[in-house]
Amino acid sequence: MQKESFFGKDYQKIKIGDVVNIAKDYPIVLSSGTEIKDVPIAYQTYGKLNKDKSNAILICHALTGDQYAASTHPVTKKKGWWKYLIGSGKVIDTDKYFIICPNTLGGCMGTLGPKEPNPKTKKPYNTDFPVITIGDMVKVQKHFIEEAFGITKLHSVIGGSMGGMLVLEWASKYPELIKSAIPIATAARHTAQNIAFHEVGRQAIMADQEWHKGDYIQKKTFPVKGLAVARMAAHVTYLSEFALAEKFGRNLQDKEKPSYKFDVDFQIESYLHHQGITFVDRFDANSYLYITRAMDYFDLANENKGDLAKAFQNSTDVKFCLISFTDDWLFPTSESKFVLNALNYIGAEVSFAEIESNRGHDSFLIENEQFSNILQGFLEGL
Amino acid sequence: MQKESFFGKDYQKIKIGDVVNIAKDYPIVLSSGTEIKDVPIAYQTYGKLNKDKSNAILICHALTGDQYAASTHPVTKKKGWWKYLIGSGKVIDTDKYFIICPNTLGGCMGTLGPKEPNPKTKKPYNTDFPVITIGDMVKVQKHFIEEAFGITKLHSVIGGSMGGMLVLEWASKYPELIKSAIPIATAARHTAQNIAFHEVGRQAIMADQEWHKGDYIQKKTFPVKGLAVARMAAHVTYLSEFALAEKFGRNLQDKEKPSYKFDVDFQIESYLHHQGITFVDRFDANSYLYITRAMDYFDLANENKGDLAKAFQNSTDVKFCLISFTDDWLFPTSESKFVLNALNYIGAEVSFAEIESNRGHDSFLIENEQFSNILQGFLEGL
Repeated sequence: MQKESFFGKDYQKIKIGDVVNIAKDYPIVLSSGTEIKDVPIAYQTYGKLNKDKSNAILICHALTGDQYAASTHPVTKKKGWWKYLIGSGKVIDTDKYFIICPNTLGGCMGTLGPKEPNPKTKKPYNTDFPVITIGDMVKVQKHFIEEAFGITKLHSVIGGSMGGMLVLEWASKYPELIKSAIPIATAARHTAQNIAFHEVGRQAIMADQEWHKGDYIQKKTFPVKGLAVARMAAHVTYLSEFALAEKFGRNLQDKEKPSYKFDVDFQIESYLHHQGITFVDRFDANSYLYITRAMDYFDLANENKGDLAKAFQNSTDVKFCLISFTDDWLFPTSESKFVLNALNYIGAEVSFAEIESNRGHDSFLIENEQFSNILQGFLEGL
Repeated sequence: MQKESFFGKDYQKIKIGDVVNIAKDYPIVLSSGTEIKDVPIAYQTYGKLNKDKSNAILICHALTGDQYAASTHPVTKKKGWWKYLIGSGKVIDTDKYFIICPNTLGGCMGTLGPKEPNPKTKKPYNTDFPVITIGDMVKVQKHFIEEAFGITKLHSVIGGSMGGMLVLEWASKYPELIKSAIPIATAARHTAQNIAFHEVGRQAIMADQEWHKGDYIQKKTFPVKGLAVARMAAHVTYLSEFALAEKFGRNLQDKEKPSYKFDVDFQIESYLHHQGITFVDRFDANSYLYITRAMDYFDLANENKGDLAKAFQNSTDVKFCLISFTDDWLFPTSESKFVLNALNYIGAEVSFAEIESNRGHDSFLIENEQFSNILQGFLEGL
């Protein structure tokens, strides 16, 4: 954890790709009451929008995801996180669909977020950035698809984990704008355990003296260690106990005997360090604070006096495909079933699949035939 | 997390209670090869040792536990962590038994550990303290009960979590010195997930600039934030999802609406902060590093070429009572069953109980009638 962070040095130099500014002439009002205007949205598209603009699919990324769903990441040079699903002849077929993946509000890959300039001060917002919600992210996405593409109805909205929360929010708030919704490995609320793990990560970041109450850009530094610890803590929750046991077990890293020191002894330690160190190269610490907070605030039932069905009362024309994974303990199947029950209650057309997995919450990012088949079948059946 | 730590200031002033020095005339050789001599052991006892010294029960504490099993803690002023079990007429009856609870090797409440003076330099060991193992802790306990009390056979060895690891180590290495063993909520090895969570905590401590590569005592400071984050991360693993949901759910802390800030909004956040802040008052950061490392190294099967039964091949005369809790996901029942199978294989006399619980790993510290009855029944039946 001695390495410097890309975000601490040259983040302005990242080649983002397409960026469009929305809400140029009027403000968008956020949940907190704050107004934002002239909002930059960074995005990637795949395939072609057809004449009647009816073939658009919106992809919503997860907490630490970004718009590079099927494109090479400009910092890490890794292939897109859903590259195996999105492409010509693939499950989400670019020959048929126009796929849009924007970086979320609060993110750090070109869309308005805490490291972008505050129009009032011309300096980065940092912690003056307004606290945002999943609802705010989706409201901004709605403006984006309308203003940037003139789309009035999405063929589908798809997303896993936090992306799935955005999908549920779309279905709840703008059901008339979507034909179908595919929320994957997600929930209609963050549980106490989810909040607890996020708070550990936030405290790790804010405990780092290099965080400087959020003003690390001006101080030309970066809370490398704090963000790395946050990522390490989160990463343990993304894998199942089985996945960790199978992948690493108690194997030692490049040695026969333990070192009797505090260096890396076990492979799992080396893996976590790697996860922490590489993460700080591609993610902003303040974005991590804001986006985890948005997830913690998400609770569709609570908005409706505890009645989750009410959140979907206008969603009866949306076709749903709910997907969960058997060994995902962060967003377990029970959370998907709460959503399923609510959707059944309002009489929505909904299919639900719990997919056998052994990679925990991360399963939605890993090639899986059953998962691919279900996605493809649902999209083709629309 | 702004509060100063007791350990950062006045740790020398803690009134420890009984301390005895063992291995005065000869060294104890640790797993790493390091020799330690004239080793202070801080301990508490309850009840009276009988004439033939046959009524002694050794209590082994958990990672962050201490010798104050049934006595008021000198720093926190809280009652003993097993006060409800230990006492006159209680499950572990002080009218019948002589109960000994020593602070573990590597600990911070008076027994030899990283904050104690290194005889060579007269300054605190800090990270010059040798890395220790569960085996070392038990070897020191053996010398302690022999030298301090002249006990040659313990009526029972009892412990939960890390304490349970010590119990298993006792049964494996010194079966002739114990009549019975009660390992609770424990395992014969630390899993990859267990190691991962520990490594997150260690990295949080070492990331704190106030850690000063372990030399914070000389610098008159303390890694308050790092240790608090480590404790917060660990604490989430001590409770089950159900316990967190029931205790806190998504309830807000003293407010009607979220603050849209990064202050405490949810009760679970407030609870975790409290856990972190109070922990730094009573625990040493370097001790946390050393003891978590000892737990990570523990693997009784690996010592015997993968054959756990072999670890207990001489333990056939020891009576075992294995206890696990249904919603303990840190040391799940499956780990106890590995031990059970090994003990059955060697033909040991073993009873096993999986107790219905809703407090996760912490269940072994919380009053539970079924747990009490099983403990009492086993001890009376000996």
